[in-house]
Amino acid sequence: MIEVEGNCKNPDQETIKYRLNHTMLRVKDPVKSVDFYTRVMGMKLLRKIDFPAAKFSLYFLGSFDENEVKDIPQTDDERRSWVLAQKSILELTHNYGTESDDNFSYHHGNSEPRGFGHIAFRVPDVQKACERFEKMGVVFQKKPSEGKMSNIAFIKDPDGYWIEIV
Amino acid sequence: MIEVEGNCKNPDQETIKYRLNHTMLRVKDPVKSVDFYTRVMGMKLLRKIDFPAAKFSLYFLGSFDENEVKDIPQTDDERRSWVLAQKSILELTHNYGTESDDNFSYHHGNSEPRGFGHIAFRVPDVQKACERFEKMGVVFQKKPSEGKMSNIAFIKDPDGYWIEIV
Repeated sequence: MIEVEGNCKNPDQETIKYRLNHTMLRVKDPVKSVDFYTRVMGMKLLRKIDFPAAKFSLYFLGSFDENEVKDIPQTDDERRSWVLAQKSILELTHNYGTESDDNFSYHHGNSEPRGFGHIAFRVPDVQKACERFEKMGVVFQKKPSEGKMSNIAFIKDPDGYWIEIV
Repeated sequence: MIEVEGNCKNPDQETIKYRLNHTMLRVKDPVKSVDFYTRVMGMKLLRKIDFPAAKFSLYFLGSFDENEVKDIPQTDDERRSWVLAQKSILELTHNYGTESDDNFSYHHGNSEPRGFGHIAFRVPDVQKACERFEKMGVVFQKKPSEGKMSNIAFIKDPDGYWIEIV
């Protein structure tokens, strides 16, 4: 195992069932974001939960290959606990009204004040995936041919959040 | 499936192998953050990659239960591609020097300008997990007893990033 200061190799046994389930990003326009993450990135929309009184909705998406996709439960009731048991779920939060406010935008974290950096998608072939993104009009932060690392790229989602392609 | 505007149910076949692999957060002090995510949250440190010329290091962590943990390859060389094939990897970026700058902090995304919201961990028992966090001195954003939803909590990591406990 890795010898790094702070690395606890034997945490409490109780933590063995803890798992990183999802990452939440706020989005200005869910129509654009759901389209992007399903059509461009191939994710499945698993749940939409509306909170009309509090004026927001949540969208839960996940990446599943041919075998995994068969396990997605059919009903929303079954999906409730199933989604929580998965990994790499993306939660998008839409606060009503932002989509029609021309002056509104969220902060992507890569200009000051910095913090969150990016999410990353593994693809079978970075070059091929990037050619597809180009044809679809996806905005690039870094094409494979730019910079030192030709085996990675960064694209932007509709809110400008960076997505690493590896 | 879910009838939502923008939801593409049949994306290109090519996307079936795309998968959300990781989320990257910048951290001020990797000793504190690696300790927090391994000791408190039970994650395994999988890789550390140093870029001395560019003055930063990357730390890759993941959550694995009793069965999954057996699959973690022993050597860093084997882990390189293996980590990319996983889900729910957390990548922490440390830019050298921030840990000793008293005035430095990253932006957690939940005050203006907002954007990134949180990461979430699924735990077997929210109440029990939160009692453990309290004993360990973890900072809470929302205890289970606070607010309307008693089945969720929010804690803060060493940089103040929110972590939902579900």
